[in-house]
Amino acid sequence: MRPLFHPALEDIKPEAILYALSDPERVAIFAKLAGTACGGTCSALADLGDRVIPKSSLSNHFKVLRESGLIRSERQGVEMRNQTRCPELDERFPGLVRAILAAYGQFPGELKTG
Amino acid sequence: MRPLFHPALEDIKPEAILYALSDPERVAIFAKLAGTACGGTCSALADLGDRVIPKSSLSNHFKVLRESGLIRSERQGVEMRNQTRCPELDERFPGLVRAILAAYGQFPGELKTG
Repeated sequence: MRPLFHPALEDIKPEAILYALSDPERVAIFAKLAGTACGGTCSALADLGDRVIPKSSLSNHFKVLRESGLIRSERQGVEMRNQTRCPELDERFPGLVRAILAAYGQFPGELKTG
Repeated sequence: MRPLFHPALEDIKPEAILYALSDPERVAIFAKLAGTACGGTCSALADLGDRVIPKSSLSNHFKVLRESGLIRSERQGVEMRNQTRCPELDERFPGLVRAILAAYGQFPGELKTG
């Protein structure tokens, strides 16, 4: 199985973050993940309130989030555990992720960054 | 001549802002405009330090910036005057534009918002 690609913190580009979060569905997934205490599995995140995201789309959303540097994914058996990289991202781009989530009306002020 | 489209403040969508600013060249134009006291003309903004942007690309960049709600453009004779909508944007999405420009290393902390 191919290893999952995660950019190093210093290689994360703002344009990749912005592109990844220019899709409201991806933002909803990311915000849900940011509010999850332990790593959210893909299947647990497929249900976004009023609609269910097809597994293939979900898998692509996770890939874009991961390769932009927004999340870290880890295979655990047949499942994938995902967590945000908010604490390190906030060091590199202070306030960026929080301001973006707030603009979308997601988690204003209560995003866990530490 | 067709009137230029500008979204009303309440119609500006975060996904459009993020998409528009997910292109480093567009960010450079926007940042230069944000630092210009009076409205910058297209031709004055074509020179971004180390490279010159072709007029056709520049025109498209301005269209994306305008239609996302980031700038306001006004025809003045044969020229187009452009200015950012930072003050109103900052009311609607507090800190967003500033955090994005800072992430790109553009104008950290000295963006005019009022």
